[in-house]
This record gives sequence, structure tokens and C-alpha cells, in this order.
Amino acid sequence: MKISIIGTGTVGQTLAVKIISAGHEVMIGTRNVSEKLASQVKDGYGNPSFAEWHETNPQVKLGTFAEAGAFGEIIFNATHGASSTAALKLANAKNLEGKVLVDVSNPLDFSKGMPPSLIPSMSNYNSLGEEIQKAFPGAKVVKTLNTMWCGVMVNPSMINNGDHANFICGNDESAKQKVKSLLNDFGWKNENIIDLGDITASRGMEGILPLWLRIMVTSKSGAFNFKIVR
Amino acid sequence: MKISIIGTGTVGQTLAVKIISAGHEVMIGTRNVSEKLASQVKDGYGNPSFAEWHETNPQVKLGTFAEAGAFGEIIFNATHGASSTAALKLANAKNLEGKVLVDVSNPLDFSKGMPPSLIPSMSNYNSLGEEIQKAFPGAKVVKTLNTMWCGVMVNPSMINNGDHANFICGNDESAKQKVKSLLNDFGWKNENIIDLGDITASRGMEGILPLWLRIMVTSKSGAFNFKIVR
Repeated sequence: MKISIIGTGTVGQTLAVKIISAGHEVMIGTRNVSEKLASQVKDGYGNPSFAEWHETNPQVKLGTFAEAGAFGEIIFNATHGASSTAALKLANAKNLEGKVLVDVSNPLDFSKGMPPSLIPSMSNYNSLGEEIQKAFPGAKVVKTLNTMWCGVMVNPSMINNGDHANFICGNDESAKQKVKSLLNDFGWKNENIIDLGDITASRGMEGILPLWLRIMVTSKSGAFNFKIVR
Repeated sequence: MKISIIGTGTVGQTLAVKIISAGHEVMIGTRNVSEKLASQVKDGYGNPSFAEWHETNPQVKLGTFAEAGAFGEIIFNATHGASSTAALKLANAKNLEGKVLVDVSNPLDFSKGMPPSLIPSMSNYNSLGEEIQKAFPGAKVVKTLNTMWCGVMVNPSMINNGDHANFICGNDESAKQKVKSLLNDFGWKNENIIDLGDITASRGMEGILPLWLRIMVTSKSGAFNFKIVR
């Protein structure tokens, strides 16, 4: 399958490598491909620049946002929540029409320092998942994987033998089925993929981020996840 | 020890019975004791009226908010979040001075129908736990137990052999130690009592409620909890 990823950060890179290893073709979309490849800027955590990363992962296609929008049968949003809608608009709403749009992002507000909280207009009675669905009514938005560190997203077995929760929500059942199948490729067992219904469940899924961040800060590790026990 | 509970609902009742069984004296505070005992109103879930409940649990002392405020060495807030500060003011700030005030409540907003979300002014960059600490600076506020159904609060072993997470936060270390000891009486193992630091961690602990409610609604049961796996 052809899969596109909007967003060139660590989350986008991590997803790209995993999706390719699962046998799919991947294009990452960025604002300006040649500028992105010319830049040697490391990210805030000291990770290699995107250009360096791409040298070691040349099988990942690069394109503009619009080219990536056109390329993928499934599109991942792996941008910062504050700029997700703008980036997806550059991918072109027509390109997203009828497609599965997987939103793994969070509406984090870095304007008041670290750790971030949520962008007020996209929290509590609203969410990023819903905002994206409203902005692209022709797309089938599926929210998932946003409640954990990206290393865990694509390698659930790294903790507790893969036995922990990944939530999923969205308005279109067939779209959720396609995403669940891809999650199986990532190593997620069906019993740990917890379907919370329509896209309004994004409120709860994104609302857990302040707790996630607090646990991460106090335990000094992002390599954990939530498991639902009964 | 003498322990008071502000709030006569199911959470307050459940805590009272458990705390007495752990060998402590308990007083529940209410606005007007004789009115409360005269009323035969069942709660919205068909539970017995408070008067009926008290007939079967006569060892629980009853008092006004102010009497309960004076009685307890430790005070539990088990009121609805929207009215917590008002109820605690009736318990009298002077009574709370220097005492441990355990806040197990959530700032749920029922004004827009079910399921509730959070009261906007007490969410994201603020929380009920912080509001209570600000309103009663002489009290040592400890937030805990708010992320689960009250049946699980006092009987953690009912699910997964007691192996799941109870978060705790507060500004005073000795107050948290006292509460942890009481949590041990409830059956909580130390390794499952996760200390998230000062009272601002209430933001994350209360912020999980929309997800908790969504899981409860979709799975049709509140008898679950979150476990942190690594």
C-alpha cells in the first residue's frame, strides 16, 4: 500500500521506517524538499538532522505536502497539533477526499513553558481530532497512537510483552478496520486496541497527555504505557 | 485516628465504611443533619437514601460541615467538584489549618449533559486540587484516588490482584506519607501508589477523567483501572 506521512519530526521518521519494514511504500511530506535536505539542524533533543536521517533511510520518498497528499492511500498526521490543520491544508483537501487520515498528534501548548499543557481551544469540549475532521469532512479521520512515546507506537512489545492499551476512535468503521490492520503490522494485538467510538473520543485520548507528561517527567522515561485492568 | 468526610454521596459513604473497618473513628459532615436524616430521596442510580444507608451504618457519626471540620485529624473532600470549595468553607478554614485534606473529587461539568467533561476554569492550566489548596493555604492538600470508581478506591484487590495505579500528589511530604499509610490500610501496595510531586499534578490526574468516562461508557463498567507498564 502507498502511505504518506505529513510531518518530518521524530514521530514521522519512526512511523516511516516501521511502515516500510511492514512492506509498504512511504512518502514523507514537507513544505520544501530541497530546503529540508539542505538543512543540517538537529532537533531539540540532539537527534540527527532530517537530511542525515534520510541519508540512512533513502527508501523513504520525499515530496511536498501536496505530493504526499496525492501519493498515499492512507495519510498520517504526525505534525505538531498547533500546525496540523495548516499543514494538512497544504496537502490539499481534495487529495484527502475519501481517504483514511490517521491522526497521531496532540494539541500541545508550548507557549507557557515546559511541560506543555493542551491548547485551550482544542481541549475539554473539543479536540484536535475533531478539528481535523471538521476541517476535512471528506476525509475519514482515525485517531490512535497519540497516548504514548513514538518508540512504543511502532514497537509495543518493547514493554510488558506488548500487553498495554492503544486507543482508537473515528466516525468511519471501515477506516478504523484498515488502521487496526496496520496496527497489527506494528505488533499491536487486537485485544489491546481499544475502540472508544466516534471521533469525539479524541477529547479523552488527548486529555490524558498532561498525566502522561507528568509521569514521564517524574519517572524520567517515556518508555511506559497505560494498560487497562479489570 | 479521627477522620472526617465532607460529602454524603456514594463516594463519602464508601470511604466511611472502609475507614471504620480499618479501625478509625469517622464523622460525615453535611449541611443539615436532621434534614438529611428526614429525607428518603434515593440518588440518581437508585441507591438507598442517605438515611437508609445510615441506619445500616450507625457507627458513622454525623455532624454539620463545621462539626466534621473540627472532628477529623484528616479530612476527606468527597463532594462534587463544583461545590467543593463552598462545602469546605462551611467546614471552616480554621478547622482545616495544619490538617491533611485529602481531595478525591473531580471538577466534572454536568451542565452540558452526559457524560460530563471538566469545568473549564478548573482544567488544563488549573485544577480542583490547586483551587482547594489556594482557598485553604493552611491545609495540607493531598490529591489521590480520584481516577477510579469508589468501589476500587477502597478495595483495589477486586481487580488484577490489586496491581494497578493510584496516583498521589501534594505539596507536603509528611501529609502524603500519612495518606499513603491510610491507602495501605485500604489495600494499596506501595509500588502502586505513584507519587507525581506537588499539587499541580492534579491537572493530569483530573484530566484523565474524560478518558475514564469514555472507557466506562463504551465498556459499560466502572470496575477497571489504569496500570502503568514499563
